[in-house]
Amino acid sequence: MNEKLILLVEDNPDDVALTMRAFKKNNIRNEVVLAGDGVEALDYLFGTGKRAGNAITPQVVLLDLKLPKVDGLDVLKAIRSDERTALLPVVVLTSSKEEQDLVNSYRLGANSYIRKPVDFEQFIEAVRQLGLYWLVLNESPKGV
Amino acid sequence: MNEKLILLVEDNPDDVALTMRAFKKNNIRNEVVLAGDGVEALDYLFGTGKRAGNAITPQVVLLDLKLPKVDGLDVLKAIRSDERTALLPVVVLTSSKEEQDLVNSYRLGANSYIRKPVDFEQFIEAVRQLGLYWLVLNESPKGV
Repeated sequence: MNEKLILLVEDNPDDVALTMRAFKKNNIRNEVVLAGDGVEALDYLFGTGKRAGNAITPQVVLLDLKLPKVDGLDVLKAIRSDERTALLPVVVLTSSKEEQDLVNSYRLGANSYIRKPVDFEQFIEAVRQLGLYWLVLNESPKGV
Repeated sequence: MNEKLILLVEDNPDDVALTMRAFKKNNIRNEVVLAGDGVEALDYLFGTGKRAGNAITPQVVLLDLKLPKVDGLDVLKAIRSDERTALLPVVVLTSSKEEQDLVNSYRLGANSYIRKPVDFEQFIEAVRQLGLYWLVLNESPKGV
């Protein structure tokens, strides 16, 4: 049982470092599982491939859109089309400024869409807010 | 054009007063449109009935579940099945402790599900967090 685990799906090492630092700085001590590409994200969620038999159940998925192997939107599609993960809260966290990415994310069932602030302090604050929101305030279905 | 309007769908006068007080206390100065039942909520969103020709486009809908006339889950269903409102962020804000309400809300496309804290200070803090999150941090599709 993974209590209030965060699945961070992010391929950019700078953004990973920044996000982890923001969690730490904001005293968000939940375990963060990092998936560096779309395949790894799905392997973690469904216990397939390198994670065979070891599926995790995060409280929230923070999903970058531009990912190697399987794109973020396809990861989202896979999450929503499987009964085991259909109701899992997914927050798109992206640098994309394309309106189409935003619309497609919501159409495919993203719970929320956040543009990564470029400014460091604002990024820290954004991670604080989204951490508190999805880990403390929001209720996820049980077993999710 | 309604900039960052909040649609509060709530029939309980005490909860309305508490929510409005929480907005004020947290300096959330966005216009709040109140719908006291499900029919009124849909009239506001689609410009029908008493709101004929005057549809509003809120940034976020705060939706109670137990509502007169049209139930909260049916309001959510109507929102998700109309192209004009399909992508609108909807946060269920309820006193319900029923797991089934939570699951149904997510299945019908709620972006988030929050149980109203019973404690007054916690309620104020919850409204602060959800206000900041959906009015400032989260990006809604344009025209939504």
